[in-house]
Amino acid sequence: MDDVTQLGPPPPRSTLKLEAIPDLVHRLRAGERRAIAAAVTELEKLSTSAPPLLEALQPYLGKALVVGFTGPPGAGKSTLVNSVISHVRSQGGTVGVIAVDPSSPISGGAILGDRIRMTAALDDDGVFVRSLASRGYLGGLSPAAVRVIDALDAAGFDLILLETVGTGQSEMDVAEVADVRVVISAPGLGDDIQAMKSGLLEIADILVVNKGDREGAELTLQQLLGALSIRSMRTPVPVLKTTATTGEGVPELVKTMQEIGQRGAGAGPMARRRRRARYLIARAAADIVARRVKEDSNREIDGLSDEVLSGRVSPDVAARKLLSK
Amino acid sequence: MDDVTQLGPPPPRSTLKLEAIPDLVHRLRAGERRAIAAAVTELEKLSTSAPPLLEALQPYLGKALVVGFTGPPGAGKSTLVNSVISHVRSQGGTVGVIAVDPSSPISGGAILGDRIRMTAALDDDGVFVRSLASRGYLGGLSPAAVRVIDALDAAGFDLILLETVGTGQSEMDVAEVADVRVVISAPGLGDDIQAMKSGLLEIADILVVNKGDREGAELTLQQLLGALSIRSMRTPVPVLKTTATTGEGVPELVKTMQEIGQRGAGAGPMARRRRRARYLIARAAADIVARRVKEDSNREIDGLSDEVLSGRVSPDVAARKLLSK
Repeated sequence: MDDVTQLGPPPPRSTLKLEAIPDLVHRLRAGERRAIAAAVTELEKLSTSAPPLLEALQPYLGKALVVGFTGPPGAGKSTLVNSVISHVRSQGGTVGVIAVDPSSPISGGAILGDRIRMTAALDDDGVFVRSLASRGYLGGLSPAAVRVIDALDAAGFDLILLETVGTGQSEMDVAEVADVRVVISAPGLGDDIQAMKSGLLEIADILVVNKGDREGAELTLQQLLGALSIRSMRTPVPVLKTTATTGEGVPELVKTMQEIGQRGAGAGPMARRRRRARYLIARAAADIVARRVKEDSNREIDGLSDEVLSGRVSPDVAARKLLSK
Repeated sequence: MDDVTQLGPPPPRSTLKLEAIPDLVHRLRAGERRAIAAAVTELEKLSTSAPPLLEALQPYLGKALVVGFTGPPGAGKSTLVNSVISHVRSQGGTVGVIAVDPSSPISGGAILGDRIRMTAALDDDGVFVRSLASRGYLGGLSPAAVRVIDALDAAGFDLILLETVGTGQSEMDVAEVADVRVVISAPGLGDDIQAMKSGLLEIADILVVNKGDREGAELTLQQLLGALSIRSMRTPVPVLKTTATTGEGVPELVKTMQEIGQRGAGAGPMARRRRRARYLIARAAADIVARRVKEDSNREIDGLSDEVLSGRVSPDVAARKLLSK
């Protein structure tokens, strides 16, 4: 692999001139929607102006609480996000939303659209919504997301919601990047969803049973509490019931998000931001290593594969042997 | 990390004596259900007898076609698996099913259960079903799965179906381990599912629109064909309509699976098996590397994190820098 490939394509040229950055930051800080949108776009596409823009935003970072919303399809995540926005707005707070869309490059991005929210929030400067296409093949958080978080943070949004469509890698990524992780479930989603929930349980700071007015909501809640009771080692996880369509339970959810956010705030904003970046580097390193092992065909890997097939060594031990060279 | 940790816990002692292995293999080869179940259990738990057992199975490997069934919850995967079993049985073929269950350690495994299939297949020696708990936190294929594939292959099953509940890592794993990948979708699953499908499109050898008798099936089919038409570089992907509840379209699906399986058979059974093992090693190596990057706190990683946050380097370039040391 040569140097050019390693460094990737050159960044797209920006229409944003360097000398215009102070003015853009000033307007973004004043909450001007067009300035925020322009900054987010520069950071999303990582234009030539993105690094100096990020530097200019630096003094204003670390105020926002970043909350991940994840859960299986059909749990009503989007409606709940809308309902959280309404509540936070009614209390005078502001909300930025980053919808992580695991559409693949081949489908051409942003299927999610911003639907109701965009319409509802269009004339409200206290709300900003952006969909980001995800990276990778089963969907994962784009590195752009951490830069967009910075833009919305500098713009003064109190709460930044990271919403996934609840599939694959993006869930795991959102869990790692958010300060607080909300996992949303609902009654009546069937067996597949039951199984899915058990995987998501482990990443939740807050569990929500949405569609709380439906039959079976109480049962789902009890099942979650039962599953949680097995997990004794961590901090107790609050389980809340919401009905996003009516807003019931949403004030309690927002309050709990804020309380848990306070708990983690001790590390300081820089530590939180570095944790996000480190996660992106870790994933990239993991991808590189996995690709090398899968694509390199040599006698050593074949030998280790045979040992794994024979049950004599575990994949983990084989991997350690390979990595130690 | 010391040697003991590296090598993991000792394998569980087996009740299967070494001298009993030839008889077990003989009975397994004769299709005796209890022998197959006993062998699968030894291999799943990787007992002390597993390596010699795998060695004894070696001469009989490479006949089965391994097909992955994946797709979002609600697409009707389990019903379709049942329907495929019925069809293959009616033609005199035999089927092994490995259901990959992404239940987490904390929930105590196998939520899927084997439901209808177990009941339907209980008195049919041509069908064998086993659920495997998945590894890792959002679900992934257990290394045990490749050993269980070997056991079912040696037992002479013509077709081995690997079914996931359609979430996270397990989908990706099944895609890598199977000889043929079937991605199942259905009409009316909503926006979330639309987005999910686009991620799964890229791994499909065959796309199925199940619930073909429902309103919207034709539209879903057309949308998939439209999405596929953008992807011009690979072999054309067949898109089939099935109604699992009536069996309609299932014979065509099975025929297409077999045809595509033939295409890939050129590499030979050992190459296919090594590819599976290599993938498990690749994942383990990726996990180790990711964990190291996330948990190591040192000045170099902090410095690289800051560069990523500033947009000056991509996570990928930062990862390469880190790995080159």
